[in-house]
This record gives sequence, C-alpha cells and structure tokens, in this order.
Amino acid sequence: MADFALRPIGHIQSTLRDLSDAPRQPDEGAPEAWLIFEDAYRPALDGLTPGSDVLLLTWLDRADRETLAVHPRDDLTRPLTGVFATRSPDRPNPIGLHRVTILSVEGLTVRVRNLEALDGTPVLDVKPVLGDVGER
Amino acid sequence: MADFALRPIGHIQSTLRDLSDAPRQPDEGAPEAWLIFEDAYRPALDGLTPGSDVLLLTWLDRADRETLAVHPRDDLTRPLTGVFATRSPDRPNPIGLHRVTILSVEGLTVRVRNLEALDGTPVLDVKPVLGDVGER
Repeated sequence: MADFALRPIGHIQSTLRDLSDAPRQPDEGAPEAWLIFEDAYRPALDGLTPGSDVLLLTWLDRADRETLAVHPRDDLTRPLTGVFATRSPDRPNPIGLHRVTILSVEGLTVRVRNLEALDGTPVLDVKPVLGDVGER
Repeated sequence: MADFALRPIGHIQSTLRDLSDAPRQPDEGAPEAWLIFEDAYRPALDGLTPGSDVLLLTWLDRADRETLAVHPRDDLTRPLTGVFATRSPDRPNPIGLHRVTILSVEGLTVRVRNLEALDGTPVLDVKPVLGDVGER
C-alpha cells in the first residue's frame, strides 16, 4: 500500500518543552496550552465552543517510528509488550490522541486544558466527543 | 510545515462495501469485521487481548480533504458547521477513530465488534483504552 500525506493544520504552544517535563497522561498533571491553527483552516473551526471536550489528534514528531515493542511506562519489570497494546509515543504512525477541554476560542487560537503534548507539536485534527445517540 | 508520511500497517475486511451501507456511528448498527495486519508489524500486536476495547485509527481513503464545513449528518436544517466540530469523514486529515471490542487474535488477523469502516480501509494504529490511573 502507498503512503498517505498528512498536512499539519496548526501547532501547539505549551510550557512543556521537552520529554522530561511531560507527564505520561494528562490526568497526571498537564498544563493549559494553546492550539494555533493555520489561516487556511479558519472555516473548519466554526462551531468549537468553550466548555466542550474535544479529541485532539497530533503528530508526535519526536517519536521513534521503528519501535514495535516496549516495556510499558519504561518499567523494566513489566514484560516487553507490542506498541499497539500500549500508549507509547514510539510506534509506526505516532499519532497522539488527547481529550482536552476548550477554554476559549479567539480567531485561530484555541486555549485548552489538560494537554500533555510538547511545545511545537503539529496538530492534525479536532473531533467532538460524541454524546448519546439522541444528542447527535 | 512539511507533510508527514503515514504508513498503512494493515487494512479492514468487512461486509460494508460502500458508503450507503455504512452506519454513521458504530452504535447505530455496525457488523463484525477483521483487521488484517502486514507481516512487518507482528511484534507490535503482542499483548492485544480478546475481550478488551481498543481505539482503532484508520485512513478514510474515500473522504474529501478539501471540505471545511458541513451540515451535520447531511441534515440541511442544521447550520453549516466547521468540520472540527463534527464527525464528518470529509476533513483535511481524514483519520477515522473507532472504539472496537477485540473478539479474537489469530496471527496477523484480529476480529473486532462494532466497526463502521468500509472494506479495504487502511489501518494506521491501535491504542488501548486507558483505565484509571491505578491500572496503568
């Protein structure tokens, strides 16, 4: 199968600057951060609402794409496990998946809570969290 | 920013063959399906367990990447909304996100329940659903 080309639609601004600063998961202590979108995608932002939760997809550009198995959470007492059974950022397609709460939307800048991704990380997509069938 | 190259790691086998067959969401009537992985990724599957729920990321290869706003669920009485506030498959980076239950794992074939993606859809990634902090 051929490769597919992802187009970054924006990037993250955060006080988290390197991997040693970053929590492993957002509920383990993640700061507020900003999503800065490219101007071309302005119409796609229409409808994002402060207070709502969204799924943010990012490209983990510092990940190692050749890693296929890891010790979960770098704990050598845990057995080597396939990356598809872990949340390791090192994986063939290092797409980050983050549930964040929107705090504000101003033009191309969206401020969010609970984002453990590093400063400069490319943004790929934003999706609403689905409610019950009746709310769609 | 430069583009990033996604590498398909496998594909979906399903009885859903075109868009008119597909439910909009898996809890609106989705069949069982099979994930067929490429041989190179065999070590990455180690640890996937029948009965567990995983997040499956796919490349929605029949989507229109130029669409930035839609009427949700094609309902013209609903206002035009930015795609990042909807689950429309048409979006700049058409990455599908599916929560599925693993039914069996046999070699490179993983059978799952509740998958609304079409036959032949490329698979990008599999991630476990995270439990509480204490279970990680």
